[in-house]
Amino acid sequence: MAKINTNYQKLAAGYLFPEIGRRVKLFSEQNPDAKIIRLGIGDVTQPLPSSVIKAGKAAFDEMGVQIKGYGQEKGYLFLREAIAQNEFEPRGVAIDPDDIFVSDGSKCDTGNIQEIFGQECRMAIQDPSYPVYVDTNVMAGRTGKANDHGQYEGLIYLPSTAENGFLADTPKEKADIIYLCFPNNPTGVIATKEELGKWVDYALKNESIILFDAAYVDFLRDDSLPHSIYEIDGAKKCAIEFRSFSKKAGFTGTRCAYTVVPKELMGKDEQGNPVSIKNLWSRRQSTKFNAVSYPIQKAAAACYTDQGKKEIKGLIDYYLANAKIIKEALVKLGFEVYGGVHSPYIWFKTPQGQDSWQFFDTLMTKAHVIGTPGSGFGPCGEGYFRLSAFGDRKEVEEAMKRISALGNHL
Amino acid sequence: MAKINTNYQKLAAGYLFPEIGRRVKLFSEQNPDAKIIRLGIGDVTQPLPSSVIKAGKAAFDEMGVQIKGYGQEKGYLFLREAIAQNEFEPRGVAIDPDDIFVSDGSKCDTGNIQEIFGQECRMAIQDPSYPVYVDTNVMAGRTGKANDHGQYEGLIYLPSTAENGFLADTPKEKADIIYLCFPNNPTGVIATKEELGKWVDYALKNESIILFDAAYVDFLRDDSLPHSIYEIDGAKKCAIEFRSFSKKAGFTGTRCAYTVVPKELMGKDEQGNPVSIKNLWSRRQSTKFNAVSYPIQKAAAACYTDQGKKEIKGLIDYYLANAKIIKEALVKLGFEVYGGVHSPYIWFKTPQGQDSWQFFDTLMTKAHVIGTPGSGFGPCGEGYFRLSAFGDRKEVEEAMKRISALGNHL
Repeated sequence: MAKINTNYQKLAAGYLFPEIGRRVKLFSEQNPDAKIIRLGIGDVTQPLPSSVIKAGKAAFDEMGVQIKGYGQEKGYLFLREAIAQNEFEPRGVAIDPDDIFVSDGSKCDTGNIQEIFGQECRMAIQDPSYPVYVDTNVMAGRTGKANDHGQYEGLIYLPSTAENGFLADTPKEKADIIYLCFPNNPTGVIATKEELGKWVDYALKNESIILFDAAYVDFLRDDSLPHSIYEIDGAKKCAIEFRSFSKKAGFTGTRCAYTVVPKELMGKDEQGNPVSIKNLWSRRQSTKFNAVSYPIQKAAAACYTDQGKKEIKGLIDYYLANAKIIKEALVKLGFEVYGGVHSPYIWFKTPQGQDSWQFFDTLMTKAHVIGTPGSGFGPCGEGYFRLSAFGDRKEVEEAMKRISALGNHL
Repeated sequence: MAKINTNYQKLAAGYLFPEIGRRVKLFSEQNPDAKIIRLGIGDVTQPLPSSVIKAGKAAFDEMGVQIKGYGQEKGYLFLREAIAQNEFEPRGVAIDPDDIFVSDGSKCDTGNIQEIFGQECRMAIQDPSYPVYVDTNVMAGRTGKANDHGQYEGLIYLPSTAENGFLADTPKEKADIIYLCFPNNPTGVIATKEELGKWVDYALKNESIILFDAAYVDFLRDDSLPHSIYEIDGAKKCAIEFRSFSKKAGFTGTRCAYTVVPKELMGKDEQGNPVSIKNLWSRRQSTKFNAVSYPIQKAAAACYTDQGKKEIKGLIDYYLANAKIIKEALVKLGFEVYGGVHSPYIWFKTPQGQDSWQFFDTLMTKAHVIGTPGSGFGPCGEGYFRLSAFGDRKEVEEAMKRISALGNHL
């Protein structure tokens, strides 16, 4: 038989969200009458903005007159220009549309990006974090096995704990690649300019590359907070930024995202010669990807029309109000709560010393509410739990009513 | 600086089609009046079927009422069931919808599939072939450098030449993974049951896995020809099949494809224990991919309605008639011509001993017609050229008129 990639066998558990799905499916089969409320996976619930729908439909109609075939691998210029003008220019950041790569999701991009780096690169990862960062490096063979705490040998973990306000310190050792996510998934913690500056300084000094996941940037409602890592001087020389329409405009099932790889960013080859990271990513994408569907790119571009902007602001307002409801209810219960402001995620310490999966089961069986166990995001997440504000308002209210009623019985 | 994946530096040339794009761009800038006809890249030209458009638009409308968020990673069941029922059942092949993985393109799937196999696997690849098979293995580090003929050390090349009718022999040595494509890109050659049986026998005997790229299956207009490798006994134990809506229904810019990984298919781990290949692919996709856009899946499913089937038959008829026009013109010129029947590709020996890129330039500069140099598909493609039948009828006729008029001056 053909030999498999045995690195997959090192993976300690199934990918987090399918694992949750499996448990929920089992529970609902055994309890068909339970009215389950899902605040686990960060999936949106509100309708797609009408300007987005209109643009997507018009694009389909266009293709009935004049087909759009293979587009530019990195996405149509109309979308890349709109992104540069609307996402970065207003923040005083000049991004060349040629440095923007449109894709079908930040999960794909943050998962695939490690392919262009050397096998020997030391990867530093916030703990807890989005599981894709760790899992894809395990699958690529950059780690040994997981220890009893679920930490993989070879990775540099950046512990984000209550003690440091869930803002990890820069590592003592030299990291080649650093995954950072702000507003953070899962803790909901945000980063100031000073905080990001700390990382850019570290990266420039250590010649590291920061992989900056800004999937939740639209939840920032304070202009003094950095919206892009490129607002920090020198970041174009040390950072790649990932952005998505998933949470911005409800595209989790519509699929569109983009990644900025500045032409200034360099890696080195065996001889120490500088090599353009942008060119490597371009080669990766043009060989293993074939651009995003034309109607979807048109739909994404509609986010930048006046009507689109208004609708998106309304969407995010809605979810932020949910976050407030969730946070306040948990605080009232006396829980230790983080996030939920400038962020769709509420992170809290599980009550009565339950571990994360125990509390997952408690919440599912007693309140019929689905959340996400903190330990699924890394060892430092153990004893914590994440609720998502992407639910429907009525369901969020109902969920918090059920949880509040249970109180000490949780 | 962070170390790059230096395997990328082994890649002998840019990915074929962007390289063609670059040359064409330069030529049209220098010759703004030239009326260029593109029969190079296999991109469709005819409008998207109206049933597809209707379904895609309706799906967008649905999302304005009730959003569709993250779907099943492997695609919605409605699409996977429609595929099993319409693509395989009529051919007497039972495919479990659970073994079907919907994706955004066969390029992505054929490029990513090698990730789940061991680094030490010996890969056998038809020469010439779709460049993705070779390039992704180079990028993954399974090869040494390219020799003067452009052959990478470590790969098993399966020479497909005029002598063997472009049907390569099974290799003398043991290959772990074998890439096969029928109807073939670029040669247009088709495979009989006997031909596929030869490969299935080899794979079962050598415990190899066949990666069967059937992107052009809809061009087969002879029921006695195998439409799926699973029509061959035992193939479920040794083959993965890739299918796409790109050429079937004009989805090159709409993006939808699928891959069948039968649960019967096994690889082995370090200890020689059998491991389910389907489970590995499922883990890969659920970690690094996030399903296909809902409107696009709905659009793809419309291909299986009565109206959709009728429209698609019309589309393929159109392109097959183009193929006939191209083939007949080239035969008339006395060229040595292959393919063009049950296939959208016409493959021919370049006149006057020109090498493939020379003839590319000749055709571009003298006839303003863009084709694809055979050498771009591998060393055995040198001295050959590919024309695609996906053009618009008028343009195809005009192109062949220009080429015929040039005759010996080509």
